[in-house]
Amino acid sequence: MAEPHRVLASAERYRGSRIRVREDTVAIAGIEGVHSREIVEAPDAVAIVPIDAEGNVLMVEQYRNAAGRVLLELPAGGIDPGETPQACAQRELREEAGHAAASWTKLGAFYTVPGIASELMHAFLAADLTEDPLPADVDEDVEMRRVPWSDALRMARSGELMDGKSIAALLLAEPFVSRWS
Amino acid sequence: MAEPHRVLASAERYRGSRIRVREDTVAIAGIEGVHSREIVEAPDAVAIVPIDAEGNVLMVEQYRNAAGRVLLELPAGGIDPGETPQACAQRELREEAGHAAASWTKLGAFYTVPGIASELMHAFLAADLTEDPLPADVDEDVEMRRVPWSDALRMARSGELMDGKSIAALLLAEPFVSRWS
Repeated sequence: MAEPHRVLASAERYRGSRIRVREDTVAIAGIEGVHSREIVEAPDAVAIVPIDAEGNVLMVEQYRNAAGRVLLELPAGGIDPGETPQACAQRELREEAGHAAASWTKLGAFYTVPGIASELMHAFLAADLTEDPLPADVDEDVEMRRVPWSDALRMARSGELMDGKSIAALLLAEPFVSRWS
Repeated sequence: MAEPHRVLASAERYRGSRIRVREDTVAIAGIEGVHSREIVEAPDAVAIVPIDAEGNVLMVEQYRNAAGRVLLELPAGGIDPGETPQACAQRELREEAGHAAASWTKLGAFYTVPGIASELMHAFLAADLTEDPLPADVDEDVEMRRVPWSDALRMARSGELMDGKSIAALLLAEPFVSRWS
């Protein structure tokens, strides 16, 4: 049975605008000595699978500097301090895809990259959409695309989508959406 | 159409043992001014869905400092310099789950967290397993668990698994494994 590590010391190594890096010195049960763990702290986040009345998924296309390419993704974003995951999902859906949703289903929550970062991603299915845009962040260049559900699913399965949270959330939504269509 | 950003300057902000943080100053088409992007550079990685002759998935349980909890995940790890994704997958499968595989199927590749980090995760299905362990990293405390395929799939779908790459890779493997069983 894997056991929690005992944290002997923790030091901030970097503080940026969106992330913080800390280094923990830990003791690991059954392993001699002390060991170092480098951890990126990032706010938890949400990803939304928004389905319109015609059965399209509202997705967003954006250039990702970290990937060095344009990616097609689900609407998503970091949770603000004091914000609930559900409120964040509603806000991000309005900011990135210009729509509000009346029906919400929680699909799950997962760590996007638990070997590196603390980010926990809450995934939601959103339906009963109405146009209700909020202004996007000033430095975000995001374009909404309506993708038929069967195409989105095919792209997730075929490797055409290259965003991990979008693949996971679309496949988690599959049993719910298939029930409707 | 979202366009690549023009990088005007790039500066290293942090260099740790496994990650590096850089800050890019970018120009974004259609948006005034210059903007900052904070990017975590991490090695690309692999995740493996290893299926034994009885239809179990070989998974690993480990404590994740970033998440602050024990997670059940697929075998996975970072690609060493000069190593191919396939060779890395074979090595990680031997180190973490004690087995080599004779049959490999590429399931896709995805960015685990493209808003933050450069990590591209290559996902593989592995079969025809034989016991063939390699020593684990000295500071890794990883326990192998054999999980029946139907249980792994149910846990991925129900939210019981909390590791994003494992959810994505298991659901990507579903059409292949269902064909066998």
